[in-house]
Amino acid sequence: MAHINFDTEVLRKFCTDAFCNFGFSPEDSAVITANLLMADIYGIESHGVQRLQRYHKSIQNGKILIDQRPEIVFETPVSAVVDGHNGMGQVIGHYSMEIAIEKAKKSGMAIVSTRNSNHYGIAGYYAKMACDQGLIGLSFTNSEAIMVPTFGKKAMLGSNPIAISMPAEPYPFFFDASTTVVTRGKVEMYNKAEKPLPEGWTVNKDGVPTTDALEILTNINQRAGGGILPLGGSEEKTGSHKGYGYGMLCEIFCSILSQGKTSNNTRINGLCHGFIAIDPAVFGDPKAIEDHFSTFLQELRDSPKAEGHDRIFTHGEKAAMAIERSKKEGVPVDVKTVIEMKDMADYLHMDFESYFGKLDVDFNSGYKASF
Amino acid sequence: MAHINFDTEVLRKFCTDAFCNFGFSPEDSAVITANLLMADIYGIESHGVQRLQRYHKSIQNGKILIDQRPEIVFETPVSAVVDGHNGMGQVIGHYSMEIAIEKAKKSGMAIVSTRNSNHYGIAGYYAKMACDQGLIGLSFTNSEAIMVPTFGKKAMLGSNPIAISMPAEPYPFFFDASTTVVTRGKVEMYNKAEKPLPEGWTVNKDGVPTTDALEILTNINQRAGGGILPLGGSEEKTGSHKGYGYGMLCEIFCSILSQGKTSNNTRINGLCHGFIAIDPAVFGDPKAIEDHFSTFLQELRDSPKAEGHDRIFTHGEKAAMAIERSKKEGVPVDVKTVIEMKDMADYLHMDFESYFGKLDVDFNSGYKASF
Repeated sequence: MAHINFDTEVLRKFCTDAFCNFGFSPEDSAVITANLLMADIYGIESHGVQRLQRYHKSIQNGKILIDQRPEIVFETPVSAVVDGHNGMGQVIGHYSMEIAIEKAKKSGMAIVSTRNSNHYGIAGYYAKMACDQGLIGLSFTNSEAIMVPTFGKKAMLGSNPIAISMPAEPYPFFFDASTTVVTRGKVEMYNKAEKPLPEGWTVNKDGVPTTDALEILTNINQRAGGGILPLGGSEEKTGSHKGYGYGMLCEIFCSILSQGKTSNNTRINGLCHGFIAIDPAVFGDPKAIEDHFSTFLQELRDSPKAEGHDRIFTHGEKAAMAIERSKKEGVPVDVKTVIEMKDMADYLHMDFESYFGKLDVDFNSGYKASF
Repeated sequence: MAHINFDTEVLRKFCTDAFCNFGFSPEDSAVITANLLMADIYGIESHGVQRLQRYHKSIQNGKILIDQRPEIVFETPVSAVVDGHNGMGQVIGHYSMEIAIEKAKKSGMAIVSTRNSNHYGIAGYYAKMACDQGLIGLSFTNSEAIMVPTFGKKAMLGSNPIAISMPAEPYPFFFDASTTVVTRGKVEMYNKAEKPLPEGWTVNKDGVPTTDALEILTNINQRAGGGILPLGGSEEKTGSHKGYGYGMLCEIFCSILSQGKTSNNTRINGLCHGFIAIDPAVFGDPKAIEDHFSTFLQELRDSPKAEGHDRIFTHGEKAAMAIERSKKEGVPVDVKTVIEMKDMADYLHMDFESYFGKLDVDFNSGYKASF
């Protein structure tokens, strides 16, 4: 898998300009770009500019409506239901988490459940928004159905990530993970790399294990059956019903409380998200709570390592390392993603070379994005 | 593994009387018993009367203090921190969830974080308390360290279950699962049955996989190293860091917000729990939300089955089946557990036969409980 390193600020300028050219306001374009680039900067390549092509296509085919604004349709001092009116997921997500944060600052905690949205990028972005304000943030999203429930053969739940972020030293706690074994983005990356998937990730349309990434992605796109397994695999013995259960927990905060579309009913659009903000001050001195947490995180990192391993990570540590790395080296982008970015630039009549100079990429390789 | 079926009401009378004889009030004895029997009635044998022996020993050795009452040490309209003063976990848990429910009914939602407690039985019991009042209930607990973090060889987190229950038809949603691949209770059951553990559940004190249940339990009791793997197994490829992350989420609501003992620091006692109650009415019409949820659950049950399977379960469905079964057949109890119950009855000078009649059990088999 060939990669080229890009300076993050150059990428930021390119993406922001692109979203402005699609018709978003400069503020919204900056939010969308911040979300995508956070993934690349945090080392979560699957959810970074790798996804630009999907947003491009979704805007092009009218799945994402540029001129729609999210709206509060129900609220109390501790809650809100937001209707995204099928606008851009990141804009809707940012708006929703800002409401949760504002209410949590007044009431101590708040939950916002959001319907009629689109892909909102990494869930962790929204959790981190709350963390940056000294709060505990959680975020959830459903997605087009991709998770096959335990003993099923049809995808019925999304990748349904749960993200949580909380202040800690020397870096914030940051956990963002799908309740499937892996995300669709990871499968897309294996497909781009033309590599077989590891065993235990996916099942075909008969519910039988497969390692063919293209088959899975094609089946998902065509709703032909099969999909990705819950965290815990295919059997109760390895905890399949638990990953499926955490997927349900996610679905409750997204599509159930907002009365939006459940993952299995989101063919065109209508994704749902959930946002929770909690002020630690409603449990005592926030500084003492943060110190207590930081001590535990350090104890985890210091605890004895298994044979063959010399490091135990706490969640957010790899992100902190990746942030440092990206400052020095920029972020790595797959060559096929670069070709997709060039396609998008051409579509928007943008001068690709004026951003990135002359790149050592064969733009006439015949590679076509599969989405 | 030989089992004997017991009538649940006879078991209830026996357990309630036993806890009264230990010195608990009739009300507290009824709560403790309700929690244990709920596990047996729901088909979660590992957390039912199978655990009586551990409570018996913990009361005997002063780990559980009978005469201590839980106390609110910090509160706001949406939150509380409870100090359990090392009393009985079920009593402290019941008290804490009642506070969460009361606050949620007034404020829309509430979180209670509880420290200095003991084992509180199944987490789902407390989630279900909220559900029975038309609310969404969540409960979390840490435990003595049993989960080895990804790439570690020393148990640093508890089994750290997350439970959630929410009203639905024809039966409530009820999900209660450890964030480890399996619970310690399951390992105890394999030990009683003298069966090797399935692969991928546990690692020994060097962080190397093992299937020896007794070795694991002995190592845990002696804090010699090793333990149970997070949901997702030992590798990041299969999502080990995700199970570990959900374990951390649990720890945050339990020991971090209450500033109590984290799982790795709970040798004598001091377990921590978390309780969340949410009134669905703060998101719209509760009946409409419940109907929407029930429809999704039915769609899941109706979705196509994988080869070799004829049924997809939703969480709470097996419990509903088990409740029906236990009404007709009573609940099955392992013969070794029956011997432990007889030991406890002898200790409390209770006439075991007056409850259960003459049982076909060899009480002189020489079997001794390992705890």
